[in-house]
Amino acid sequence: MSGATNTADWIAVDWGTTRLRAWAVAPDGAVLAEAAADQGMAALAPADYEPALLDLVADWLGPGATAVLACGMVGSRQGWAEVPYAPVPCRPLALAPVAVAGTDPRIALRIVPGLCQDRPADVMRGEETQIAGVLAAVPGFDGVLCLPGTHTKWVEISAGEVVSFRSFMTGELYRALSAATVLRHSTGPGWQAEAFSTALADTLSRPEGLAARLFTIRAEGLLHGLDPAAASARLSGLLIGAELAAARPYWLGREVAVIGAPALAGRYAEALMLQGVPARREDGAAMVLAGLSALHRSRGGAA
Amino acid sequence: MSGATNTADWIAVDWGTTRLRAWAVAPDGAVLAEAAADQGMAALAPADYEPALLDLVADWLGPGATAVLACGMVGSRQGWAEVPYAPVPCRPLALAPVAVAGTDPRIALRIVPGLCQDRPADVMRGEETQIAGVLAAVPGFDGVLCLPGTHTKWVEISAGEVVSFRSFMTGELYRALSAATVLRHSTGPGWQAEAFSTALADTLSRPEGLAARLFTIRAEGLLHGLDPAAASARLSGLLIGAELAAARPYWLGREVAVIGAPALAGRYAEALMLQGVPARREDGAAMVLAGLSALHRSRGGAA
Repeated sequence: MSGATNTADWIAVDWGTTRLRAWAVAPDGAVLAEAAADQGMAALAPADYEPALLDLVADWLGPGATAVLACGMVGSRQGWAEVPYAPVPCRPLALAPVAVAGTDPRIALRIVPGLCQDRPADVMRGEETQIAGVLAAVPGFDGVLCLPGTHTKWVEISAGEVVSFRSFMTGELYRALSAATVLRHSTGPGWQAEAFSTALADTLSRPEGLAARLFTIRAEGLLHGLDPAAASARLSGLLIGAELAAARPYWLGREVAVIGAPALAGRYAEALMLQGVPARREDGAAMVLAGLSALHRSRGGAA
Repeated sequence: MSGATNTADWIAVDWGTTRLRAWAVAPDGAVLAEAAADQGMAALAPADYEPALLDLVADWLGPGATAVLACGMVGSRQGWAEVPYAPVPCRPLALAPVAVAGTDPRIALRIVPGLCQDRPADVMRGEETQIAGVLAAVPGFDGVLCLPGTHTKWVEISAGEVVSFRSFMTGELYRALSAATVLRHSTGPGWQAEAFSTALADTLSRPEGLAARLFTIRAEGLLHGLDPAAASARLSGLLIGAELAAARPYWLGREVAVIGAPALAGRYAEALMLQGVPARREDGAAMVLAGLSALHRSRGGAA
């Protein structure tokens, strides 16, 4: 045991709908090791969470209880344990993680609460930690965060607080349309930048046309042999364009940062650039870790 | 055999993506019998079509080859035999069904061609026959037809011709969203008229908000206990509202008829009435049969 080089001071966990990701962190904040598995909320019953985590991190555990700080859907009703939402406005860096009782004695689990908004009704779980990471990494950030993903979030930040936010089902719409509708016959792997930007401009200027333009993808495939890569890029452009049209009050004339996986965040940054909005970009995984680290430190690392 | 009362003069067939429906028709046009099966295009390989049809209509066949006139996805690339599209503008009552060779000697199959439009690219298969039925039942109809379904069609009719049309994926979007996304946790059986009309007005007046309002259904379920029936009605209202916003040039100030299954056609007629547009309604199955009958007669009933 004394020879283990990866024994963690504490463990950071990002546990979403489809994926579980963990980092072994040293006392000085350095990452000693990381691991991931396709063991997201969608694949797990409540009793499965603890074994799934222990499978992934057992090698990092020292004597006594190792602190584990987790965020994401792990704290939802279908998660390991339901943790309440904190209502906005609120300070992400002041969120108080909730201890989950009755865990294996080798770990001491706490889960970061999500955020909720009364009107318009909205919720997030996981993004609040990325936001905390941005605020820790860029103190004094004032402006708008865009966090693209299954349910993309647009978040208004002022004086260290989340003032308001809005979720768009763009990512899930893309997946459902390209997998579960007639468009599955027309879309395919690959990308075509011009098809993306043209479609983006189409729905940004006339968002009401979305439902008709979707079927046009299929019809152009049948009649004009539309390339499957162009079809995918066009579908993405139509949906992101419709989202940008609705989110215009968030980004127009504002300082915007896009936080997410590089490929998807790149599409959003490109879309914003085409509207004359240069967006800062941050890696989503790095911001989750920064947020978990900040929240861990603010509680003195107590298990 | 001489005792069979259901021996058809000819057989009318409406064969779509999910369903096969057939009528035994007498020489005077009376319906002697009808039958249906869940044997749509989506469930069949090309070689399965003939056995599926014979299973359904074998009792109606007399000596010699009975004429069968079919419309719908049966004529698509994934159908029994691919039949070309007729380009618009064109007269639905003048469409020439295409004989399919090599069928069982007891039947002589012809398939009604679909319609296609070059720009914006669009296609239909099956609706052209319903349109022919309307034009046969209401000679001189001039105005707009709305044919709600998986892919709702809005069709401009003038002087007996289809001038232009546009397809909206509204029905398929509804199904994909309520079955394959997080909204499946929030929607449920039942209906709530006020939730429908409020959501309809929302996206009709601000269609760009659709992507955000979809996630609000989920969030209101989580935070405010939104009733699943209200959630379903709201989802339907949001999508039909977005469609009506895009189809406004079709219905604004026009004579409109809605052709479809009674429940769905009723929603569209209600939505149009809320915009001050009283729409005539016709039953979709009746119009298919009327259209097949008119096209059968125009060819002299030849097998």
